Amino acid sequence: MPGPISSSLLSALTGDPAIEALFSDDADLDAMLVFETALAAAQAECGLVPPEAAGRIVAVAERFVVDRERLAAAMRRDGVAGPDFVAQLKQAVGEPFGRFVHLGATSQDIVDTSLVLRLQEVAAVLGDRLAALVGDLDALATAQGAVPLMAHTRMQQALPTTAGDKVAAWRAPLSRHLDRLEALGPRVFVVQFGGPVGTRSGLEGAGDAVAAALARRLGLYDGPCWHTARDGIVEFGNWLALIAGSLGKIGQDLALLAQNEVGAVKIAGGGSSSAMKHKSNPVGAEVLVALARFAAGLQGTLAQSLVHEYERSGAAWTLEWLTLPPIAVATGAALSHARDLVARLSFAPTV
Amino acid sequence: MPGPISSSLLSALTGDPAIEALFSDDADLDAMLVFETALAAAQAECGLVPPEAAGRIVAVAERFVVDRERLAAAMRRDGVAGPDFVAQLKQAVGEPFGRFVHLGATSQDIVDTSLVLRLQEVAAVLGDRLAALVGDLDALATAQGAVPLMAHTRMQQALPTTAGDKVAAWRAPLSRHLDRLEALGPRVFVVQFGGPVGTRSGLEGAGDAVAAALARRLGLYDGPCWHTARDGIVEFGNWLALIAGSLGKIGQDLALLAQNEVGAVKIAGGGSSSAMKHKSNPVGAEVLVALARFAAGLQGTLAQSLVHEYERSGAAWTLEWLTLPPIAVATGAALSHARDLVARLSFAPTV
Amino acid sequence: MPGPISSSLLSALTGDPAIEALFSDDADLDAMLVFETALAAAQAECGLVPPEAAGRIVAVAERFVVDRERLAAAMRRDGVAGPDFVAQLKQAVGEPFGRFVHLGATSQDIVDTSLVLRLQEVAAVLGDRLAALVGDLDALATAQGAVPLMAHTRMQQALPTTAGDKVAAWRAPLSRHLDRLEALGPRVFVVQFGGPVGTRSGLEGAGDAVAAALARRLGLYDGPCWHTARDGIVEFGNWLALIAGSLGKIGQDLALLAQNEVGAVKIAGGGSSSAMKHKSNPVGAEVLVALARFAAGLQGTLAQSLVHEYERSGAAWTLEWLTLPPIAVATGAALSHARDLVARLSFAPTV
Amino acid sequence: MPGPISSSLLSALTGDPAIEALFSDDADLDAMLVFETALAAAQAECGLVPPEAAGRIVAVAERFVVDRERLAAAMRRDGVAGPDFVAQLKQAVGEPFGRFVHLGATSQDIVDTSLVLRLQEVAAVLGDRLAALVGDLDALATAQGAVPLMAHTRMQQALPTTAGDKVAAWRAPLSRHLDRLEALGPRVFVVQFGGPVGTRSGLEGAGDAVAAALARRLGLYDGPCWHTARDGIVEFGNWLALIAGSLGKIGQDLALLAQNEVGAVKIAGGGSSSAMKHKSNPVGAEVLVALARFAAGLQGTLAQSLVHEYERSGAAWTLEWLTLPPIAVATGAALSHARDLVARLSFAPTV
Repeated sequence: MPGPISSSLLSALTGDPAIEALFSDDADLDAMLVFETALAAAQAECGLVPPEAAGRIVAVAERFVVDRERLAAAMRRDGVAGPDFVAQLKQAVGEPFGRFVHLGATSQDIVDTSLVLRLQEVAAVLGDRLAALVGDLDALATAQGAVPLMAHTRMQQALPTTAGDKVAAWRAPLSRHLDRLEALGPRVFVVQFGGPVGTRSGLEGAGDAVAAALARRLGLYDGPCWHTARDGIVEFGNWLALIAGSLGKIGQDLALLAQNEVGAVKIAGGGSSSAMKHKSNPVGAEVLVALARFAAGLQGTLAQSLVHEYERSGAAWTLEWLTLPPIAVATGAALSHARDLVARLSFAPTV
Repeated sequence: MPGPISSSLLSALTGDPAIEALFSDDADLDAMLVFETALAAAQAECGLVPPEAAGRIVAVAERFVVDRERLAAAMRRDGVAGPDFVAQLKQAVGEPFGRFVHLGATSQDIVDTSLVLRLQEVAAVLGDRLAALVGDLDALATAQGAVPLMAHTRMQQALPTTAGDKVAAWRAPLSRHLDRLEALGPRVFVVQFGGPVGTRSGLEGAGDAVAAALARRLGLYDGPCWHTARDGIVEFGNWLALIAGSLGKIGQDLALLAQNEVGAVKIAGGGSSSAMKHKSNPVGAEVLVALARFAAGLQGTLAQSLVHEYERSGAAWTLEWLTLPPIAVATGAALSHARDLVARLSFAPTV
Repeated sequence: MPGPISSSLLSALTGDPAIEALFSDDADLDAMLVFETALAAAQAECGLVPPEAAGRIVAVAERFVVDRERLAAAMRRDGVAGPDFVAQLKQAVGEPFGRFVHLGATSQDIVDTSLVLRLQEVAAVLGDRLAALVGDLDALATAQGAVPLMAHTRMQQALPTTAGDKVAAWRAPLSRHLDRLEALGPRVFVVQFGGPVGTRSGLEGAGDAVAAALARRLGLYDGPCWHTARDGIVEFGNWLALIAGSLGKIGQDLALLAQNEVGAVKIAGGGSSSAMKHKSNPVGAEVLVALARFAAGLQGTLAQSLVHEYERSGAAWTLEWLTLPPIAVATGAALSHARDLVARLSFAPTV
Repeated sequence: MPGPISSSLLSALTGDPAIEALFSDDADLDAMLVFETALAAAQAECGLVPPEAAGRIVAVAERFVVDRERLAAAMRRDGVAGPDFVAQLKQAVGEPFGRFVHLGATSQDIVDTSLVLRLQEVAAVLGDRLAALVGDLDALATAQGAVPLMAHTRMQQALPTTAGDKVAAWRAPLSRHLDRLEALGPRVFVVQFGGPVGTRSGLEGAGDAVAAALARRLGLYDGPCWHTARDGIVEFGNWLALIAGSLGKIGQDLALLAQNEVGAVKIAGGGSSSAMKHKSNPVGAEVLVALARFAAGLQGTLAQSLVHEYERSGAAWTLEWLTLPPIAVATGAALSHARDLVARLSFAPTV
């Protein structure tokens, strides 16, 4: 996202504080620090770093406060926060142990691993919400599933169906999204550790062992270096957009069902209008549609970053940073809106 | 795709006859007929259709030739080929058995099942090519992996690496795409059978049994009706675009490595120029980049179709038809170009 | 579009024969020939080519039949049809005049100029349809504008309005699109003539004079070489997608107004259903929505081709070929559907 | 943008404080207040509002401080800030004049007019930067245009050209973007004033006169109500993305020209690397590519909002809010990066 447009108004409608927090500077810097301390510990474990050095790094990290102004200037110059963050941390650790900070690692390792650590948390938050929403829909089906409703195909009345049939159609893809989440972990939540050109060189042949130990300490999957193969990142974005899209379908249905002329759904606490006092607008439902379309389009732009030239593309990497966070926030917001809508809706028979 | 722009020239560069064939009218109509005969047989099996009726339907189907002009006119009017196709088939079967054609089914059942039958074939063709390309890359790594090459990060020379490291980075996502293909089957290659509003009604309670028998006969997965939950279709498009994107990365690398000033790669049989006879253009590599970007963008548009209103959205459905086939063709073409390029490339040391 | 998927069924719904014809091989090759003969004549005019040579080129062009199989193979190898087309034409002209064919020109000149010659025709066809549609809407407003209708904001009934108000809201952007068309000509319908690297070199300093004469003969605007600055191409695609989008809004409104529960619009001759005989589906309206979304997404992908590296990007150029034609066809089809819908619709009072 | 991800780090790289400020709550609320005071004054001018009422509204507005917490809650409920903003302002004005606030207007009027007021400022800022960049390029051409450089087509060396030729190719589209800006004003910077359903009703027939007076007071163009015809908004987004795309081409060229192996360009003050001290990364150039691709994709998503149902679509409107601001910020950031790069670059002969 190109800069923090400080719109708390739009954010009230389409934002998600929990997900935004995971893409904040704070969360990023914390995760970067976690990476460096876990790396030092892993390298101590592999005999590459003296235990005292690792101990010192961990101890310093606990009270390390990065100079953010300097870091922002470095970001502008270097295109990535890694180099200056590491330089500041090395300085804080001081010699003789400073040189053991970030040993054999490169900016991409710290930045990408910070990302997946946080994506794992994003997935946990959204997975919980998805599961809760599935539960909400089950409860809705139990409570109101028998309400007879007219079905519509191609925007015309078709044949009678029930609220339960509708809810089942909304629920099925959400449950598949939970299956997808389980499957994608080993491809997405993978430690990134490759060194300057992704070959894990310069570690006395212990590069793979370090990666394995690092992954274990970070609670990530171990796997080959993925610095230039961004399919995992895009797969995660695709997963998010699938969720947002499935919720957009619910939103579109609700907006249609809540039409005055249709009257199949009432959404309590609808939005008001400045000019027409009688109205009760299906605001949350419309927002679901907007978020779905936003996430869908951004997903197609995120996928452009698969064309990642050479051993590190600043262009493709920056494009990921601009696109993935808003997809995640949009999906998070959509899940919250969906739960909120389900809690407020009541079906009315239309046949 | 909005109509058959008969460009055999562009097709020579970016087309894929095998995949195009699977999205042709011929393939669609064949699969629709397979659906109807399998349905009749499944319903006979479930006791809903007299065996003689099923026999008659199968027999007629064998020699059935649809009136395509009439069908095209109906497509324009109805927005979908199903109704008139079924009407023509019923007519051909004649009474008293005609009324057993398409029993309890709707247009979406025949059209969507025809689609997934063909997507399964698309997946088989592309999966084979992917596996072959992985093999090609293994052979390339064996033959030329030791060639020392300069790595580049952010478009600048970094540190020495090898051709083998590059090939490994190209190969890894392709192998993950094969894993993804295995996982997506049960969510994508699922029979669609729901009847008018997706509830499998009107079959004396045997709707689920018919769906199961139909799936078995068609070699598809059984599962709940997915008429309005299009996540499987979009997941398949996402899978295609992931492949195209990973190949776009290879293409971008090759175009960079083949620069005269870099000289790390030679591609035999490069393209010629009308004005500059000395040139050897990395045409296939550039086409890989174009196809990746095309597929990425279309994927984002396909995902818009997740917002599928009510029990059947003509708008969202048509959008799928416009976007999924070209993604598949682009991905197929990209796989062919990639195999062709790998066969023609030789690395040259740059360090 | 990655290859001619020969779906006459989908084409019946979303195709446009007139626009497809302008992107066919036939039209492209014709325009390429027009370019070469106009170039020879322009260069004769500027004293760079002997009149006999120009005469011979024109005479040969009149009966020139390109070997398309050879050309397709060359397209695959060279990534562009220009080089082999020119080679074949030179061969047909023969010595001593063959070397005056394509003098000082490059593949991009012939291919891009062929494109804009045809885009100009696309614009003429679509501009005529737009103007006719504006007229249709005027007639509709005259005939039925007084019908009182309920307005809807945020999918809820708002206050009474009239059919005339609705039609006026549909008409206004169409009329602006006609204004836009007038403004974009000098930026889009510009001759491309630059030679190998876009500098009009190698013509004894007469490059600009040749370009001017060539433009005049072709009925195009003169201007600086735009080989690497593709803003005109993208602007044209944007214009197309704006039209498609405005028509998508009409389609969405019609699908909503034609709902059984709303009953504000009747569309004569609606689509039928295989399972529900009572239905009259607003197929054309839904197709307008699908085409709008398709064009919108493709426009965003076409715009990726603005990142056109160096003096000619095969990747970006190919991406244009894949995206611009389908946008144009979709927009053309949308205009036809819109006119057809307007002719068939009647408003009914809802207040 | 779905919420204020407070990343000052990413913002340092891809943000634009001046443009972000124009999309902030502060700027929005200020412009909304400007709308209401201008409306009251215009309506006083037209005899619809007593002068004392208009005077009171203007006087209150001068010291009006909106309750933002309440407004954010209302935004979440109503989907738009207009209703509660107006309610708060009415309350502050108090009776007997409060009922003259927002007379005959609706939420869309205040919100959309606030938007175009700020888009006009965005255009002014970016237009100035564009013009300055054109000047920078002219100076660059004067200073270094004679440097001989090898041209490249399809990523291969072609023929010699000069730095001046390159700069001219970069400059030409920028100058066209300035022409486009001049043309789009009357279609984009148009007052929105329509009342509840866009018909300017309820103002004793003076609706058009009010709109004209309002436009004049606000420095906007007068024109028909465009509440549901969003082509102007999308045209503005397209213009932004065209600029970003043209700058992306410059960035791509610079990243290629600055390759160590090519050595045609040096960019002073390049980015550093955490692992490789010798590097000087063309960070700004890469960022231009990323911003171009981001803006291109978002433009295609913004265009989805043209399908704006009925007299006001909450879904389509929200989608505009999510997409247009980041396109503008990206384009603003790109212009700053481009100017910065041009100031720091020096060409070196390569032929």
